[in-house]
Amino acid sequence: MIHFECDYGEGCAPAVLQALSRTNMEQTVGYGLDPYSLQAKQLIADLCGLRSDERQDSLWRGRETAGAVHFLVGGTQTNTVVINYLLRPHQGVIAADCSHINVHETGAIEHCGHKVLALPTEDGRLTAVQIQDALLQHLYDPNIEHTIQPGMVYLSFPTETGMVYSKSELQAISAVCRQYSVPLYIDGARLGYGLRSPKADITLQELAALTDIFYIGGTKQGALFGEALVIRNPACRKDFRYFVKQGGGMLAKGRLLGLQFLTLFTDDLYWNLSDHAVSQALRIRQALTEKGYPLYMDSYTNQQFTILTNEQLERLQQRFVLSVVERKDSGHTIVRICTDWATAPDNVTQLINAL
Amino acid sequence: MIHFECDYGEGCAPAVLQALSRTNMEQTVGYGLDPYSLQAKQLIADLCGLRSDERQDSLWRGRETAGAVHFLVGGTQTNTVVINYLLRPHQGVIAADCSHINVHETGAIEHCGHKVLALPTEDGRLTAVQIQDALLQHLYDPNIEHTIQPGMVYLSFPTETGMVYSKSELQAISAVCRQYSVPLYIDGARLGYGLRSPKADITLQELAALTDIFYIGGTKQGALFGEALVIRNPACRKDFRYFVKQGGGMLAKGRLLGLQFLTLFTDDLYWNLSDHAVSQALRIRQALTEKGYPLYMDSYTNQQFTILTNEQLERLQQRFVLSVVERKDSGHTIVRICTDWATAPDNVTQLINAL
Amino acid sequence: MIHFECDYGEGCAPAVLQALSRTNMEQTVGYGLDPYSLQAKQLIADLCGLRSDERQDSLWRGRETAGAVHFLVGGTQTNTVVINYLLRPHQGVIAADCSHINVHETGAIEHCGHKVLALPTEDGRLTAVQIQDALLQHLYDPNIEHTIQPGMVYLSFPTETGMVYSKSELQAISAVCRQYSVPLYIDGARLGYGLRSPKADITLQELAALTDIFYIGGTKQGALFGEALVIRNPACRKDFRYFVKQGGGMLAKGRLLGLQFLTLFTDDLYWNLSDHAVSQALRIRQALTEKGYPLYMDSYTNQQFTILTNEQLERLQQRFVLSVVERKDSGHTIVRICTDWATAPDNVTQLINAL
Amino acid sequence: MIHFECDYGEGCAPAVLQALSRTNMEQTVGYGLDPYSLQAKQLIADLCGLRSDERQDSLWRGRETAGAVHFLVGGTQTNTVVINYLLRPHQGVIAADCSHINVHETGAIEHCGHKVLALPTEDGRLTAVQIQDALLQHLYDPNIEHTIQPGMVYLSFPTETGMVYSKSELQAISAVCRQYSVPLYIDGARLGYGLRSPKADITLQELAALTDIFYIGGTKQGALFGEALVIRNPACRKDFRYFVKQGGGMLAKGRLLGLQFLTLFTDDLYWNLSDHAVSQALRIRQALTEKGYPLYMDSYTNQQFTILTNEQLERLQQRFVLSVVERKDSGHTIVRICTDWATAPDNVTQLINAL
Repeated sequence: MIHFECDYGEGCAPAVLQALSRTNMEQTVGYGLDPYSLQAKQLIADLCGLRSDERQDSLWRGRETAGAVHFLVGGTQTNTVVINYLLRPHQGVIAADCSHINVHETGAIEHCGHKVLALPTEDGRLTAVQIQDALLQHLYDPNIEHTIQPGMVYLSFPTETGMVYSKSELQAISAVCRQYSVPLYIDGARLGYGLRSPKADITLQELAALTDIFYIGGTKQGALFGEALVIRNPACRKDFRYFVKQGGGMLAKGRLLGLQFLTLFTDDLYWNLSDHAVSQALRIRQALTEKGYPLYMDSYTNQQFTILTNEQLERLQQRFVLSVVERKDSGHTIVRICTDWATAPDNVTQLINAL
Repeated sequence: MIHFECDYGEGCAPAVLQALSRTNMEQTVGYGLDPYSLQAKQLIADLCGLRSDERQDSLWRGRETAGAVHFLVGGTQTNTVVINYLLRPHQGVIAADCSHINVHETGAIEHCGHKVLALPTEDGRLTAVQIQDALLQHLYDPNIEHTIQPGMVYLSFPTETGMVYSKSELQAISAVCRQYSVPLYIDGARLGYGLRSPKADITLQELAALTDIFYIGGTKQGALFGEALVIRNPACRKDFRYFVKQGGGMLAKGRLLGLQFLTLFTDDLYWNLSDHAVSQALRIRQALTEKGYPLYMDSYTNQQFTILTNEQLERLQQRFVLSVVERKDSGHTIVRICTDWATAPDNVTQLINAL
Repeated sequence: MIHFECDYGEGCAPAVLQALSRTNMEQTVGYGLDPYSLQAKQLIADLCGLRSDERQDSLWRGRETAGAVHFLVGGTQTNTVVINYLLRPHQGVIAADCSHINVHETGAIEHCGHKVLALPTEDGRLTAVQIQDALLQHLYDPNIEHTIQPGMVYLSFPTETGMVYSKSELQAISAVCRQYSVPLYIDGARLGYGLRSPKADITLQELAALTDIFYIGGTKQGALFGEALVIRNPACRKDFRYFVKQGGGMLAKGRLLGLQFLTLFTDDLYWNLSDHAVSQALRIRQALTEKGYPLYMDSYTNQQFTILTNEQLERLQQRFVLSVVERKDSGHTIVRICTDWATAPDNVTQLINAL
Repeated sequence: MIHFECDYGEGCAPAVLQALSRTNMEQTVGYGLDPYSLQAKQLIADLCGLRSDERQDSLWRGRETAGAVHFLVGGTQTNTVVINYLLRPHQGVIAADCSHINVHETGAIEHCGHKVLALPTEDGRLTAVQIQDALLQHLYDPNIEHTIQPGMVYLSFPTETGMVYSKSELQAISAVCRQYSVPLYIDGARLGYGLRSPKADITLQELAALTDIFYIGGTKQGALFGEALVIRNPACRKDFRYFVKQGGGMLAKGRLLGLQFLTLFTDDLYWNLSDHAVSQALRIRQALTEKGYPLYMDSYTNQQFTILTNEQLERLQQRFVLSVVERKDSGHTIVRICTDWATAPDNVTQLINAL
């Protein structure tokens, strides 16, 4: 069977494993304060155009201004730690109703006390107007304190449905968030696959500048595991390491994360791996279009969505593993086809031929 | 100004105040273990057709089987304590999207860790079919443990929109809940106004038998404050008093609650007060209908909903306080008109004449 | 039986019940925004020497600066709401190990996510030095972010053991709190009984000035129920009403609380009731001393603690209900004897004669 | 510098890296349902003498009885998920006051709502008697529901201070737990170093049989990261995967964990690595004893504790990194010296010579 059902089916980029092997018997301090982690944090801060003091020194007051970059283990954990950090107990997070935090994290956000204020979308993308409407609706509610105060906005870039926001869309959302003093957080589990999409017109530095906090996904992008959280807004850095530890996200051998990201952001490896996944996905997209399969989402990233007849689905499932999104009706099913940094071009060719 | 905007504008039934005055200087033990509270609990258990051992004795094991009835201070508190008791951390509560717990309790349910699994409704009433669909959707989700497990069902009787469930509707819902081992909880903040509605075809005992747990509202029904929680299902009684205390709901002078409910359920006072509110509301309903005002909800309980033109609203607001539900469009507004146990018939007459 | 086991055995001061009766059928708006509540809040703010804008108007931004006084239903609820408001998720509250929040609130503080950082005391009183030590210990911990950050200090005045802090002790504690930017909260469940103790050398205004937030107890001091929370520090007022609502503490008929406190703080009723309880307790204290009973705590407030032999305990329990604190050894028991605003002098005389 | 300050300074056993490299480009399903994880889970269940159905099939009801073994990423996360699973909201966990959950997890247990009921110990070990006393004290508390119900017991084997429980001590503790229906959980972050200590008289299967749930540490024992949680008591298996996901512990590439544990438990690698660390630690212990250094804890596991004079500490710190536990007095410091699976015997020789 050839797998296209997800983007976390393989291990990691060989260079990452090599780095782990090369340094395996070195002794370093733990919890992300080792030289590899500090170097990787500084590198990422630089790439994002941030000034950062990554010394991570050991005194309370010293820490308050440090730490633009933190490494965490996985996406649900990162989302939970960030949202728990940003919100006060009477606040909730505005998000698309199909967003990962609203449907696929077993209520981790609610478990730490916060409601997801879910808004409907057409393709997974929120708009500046609907965010502003939600904020104003709260602001003018006569029973204001009987309702949850919107305390932050959560976006995915790209979305769970493979869509990217344009620069102007993100600028508009960012402007609303700043007008109402509501932090903007971007979930970048597949950030590379979004930024390297032909539909993306924004750079990493531009995206960073529009957010308060966001993460650069590693797990789905060539690392064994790990996400690099970037806190652009210095006001959101104080005491952040407490939250990482409390949330179970402070790896004893923190250097495992530092080393992986150091490797990924050396010699453009991260971007090359992203390009690979996107180009393979676009081959599938083109084949779908040419062969008359309807596109369920107009995605130009590593996830492609189409609608199959029962006959088509059954035939393809004999050789390929696809991800069933949902039954559309008794005769049709919506499926997701994923590529990633490791997708073999020949496997894509086989899939295309089988369509 | 004459007030019709809510059902908690006045104090309490005079008999309640008299009971408080009569017993004021007595010394009793605290925390709901006094003779008045025990008597009231037994009385309510009897009215609901329950066997209950209300001794509330002081040993751990003894308590496990005791306690069918508990008195709490308010509705948000009662809902929070019950839901916190019934759910495990990975579970959520199925409720109507317009339900009180979903929109008007400042996220108290999420604050104690649980998602409200909100379902859309036409008039505030859930159906057995949509509850079953939600349960099955979870059961057959391929990523089942990535999503929240529905752990209970929350209904209001009557709903926030004044509607009552018929006996057959409740029977169907109760049957689904039992089939899937999901407890059913009914918020009865206005239970009397629901049961005494001409549209209700169910008795208190019948309603009790269909639920696992429900409460009989006092705050809006003639008490100064207080709700009587009835736990029909003995499996949901163990350790319940810990949750009341932890939730800030265990009144030091617990007898204040016991005395009030003892008074309300003596000589049918509770039912007579309910009848009064409903009959005054039906006078308003009839006037609205006769004068051509559209009914926004087909309510036969103490809350009436209509749609007013701007001109009508302005005119009425000169003498009457109504509750604005929402602006329907630039020319029309949905309003709520409430009666309660204390509504003066002459005030209703004045409102009717002004319509 | 004559009761001395607690200070919440009776109802309320007759004037309170009269006020409730007198206003019973008035219609007012709910949730503490009625004229009685606003008047009571302004009165208490004035008594505490605070500037307050008690308009409680309905716009978000407007509320930020309003609200020096809030009424809640009970002590556990008040403590939970305040601590939940003041702390961030990685912070805990410094408190005496015998404090109410640490031992008698069923973990309500932990339930909302915070550790009680319990310090040992001799008589229930924390000292400035031990608070500073705890803060410094955290500050210089090499694994600082692996431990809980002390985020506030909780005191009781008087303590659960009947002791009062001197003005100089409170000044020292307050100074430490301000030096390290850690808010100071005082639980005043029995504030009147503390301030009217002959050992107290501090006024209400002086106490207010040394804290960030504190409450004036009603439940044990002549009200039916209710506590008046005073937020001296304007930085702690923003959005506070959301927390009251979320915590189940926003009474629909908020005026019940406003009216009670308005009555208690009219014509010095609160202070006169406090004086009564203290003077009756001091009669008992004197009798204990004269008759050679050891004082377990050197209390000059409404709670007296002594150690009884088995024979003495048995004899007294035939006519009086006392509170057993704990068995000291096989032959002796520590008991608490409480007076309150309603204690009949003749009952005290009977107890003294029986000693 | 030569490092002895912790047992997580190096990467992992070379065989583990080799297994990751060998399988790197394979495509497997995620979230711990891959063949390597299932094989490792079955292997560990067998080693623990458990019957387990590790199919992890996809239907709700099917899962209820499955899953004796789960892999998580780190220790704080594992402790949090387990305790959150086992306790109800009104319950706390009995633990030693120096236990990891009480002092070094940034309040993660309280963050999910539960109090650590900390008991004092001499050397980090709880006794059956003190556990029983704590349970009885709660059971006979007249204000039982005002206090937290002890809901489970947490032990570390070995303790944070390097001590092991004897089989008879664990049998006694287990018997108390079963008598009072309180689950027993053992934190085995260094389980191998405990079981291979010359002072240990218990096997893995015997230890498993005495607990309800425990974990076999990987992070400090030769894995890159990861802990293997073993649920002996089938009643504690239902729905467990929801908690892992909600707690951020369900690794997308779950096979990384499965592969590591499969490798560690093949050909006794785990035990051989444990033996190595313990034997090196015993060399240090012997040298300390022979040279007259006081042992602060009588440890026979991989952690050794001694008391150094300022002069000794300064001298050693020029070449060795040790862990400062605390300043004992102005002239002495308590230090911890750790070995692990990777400790070079020559480094130990150098340390011994320098003592």
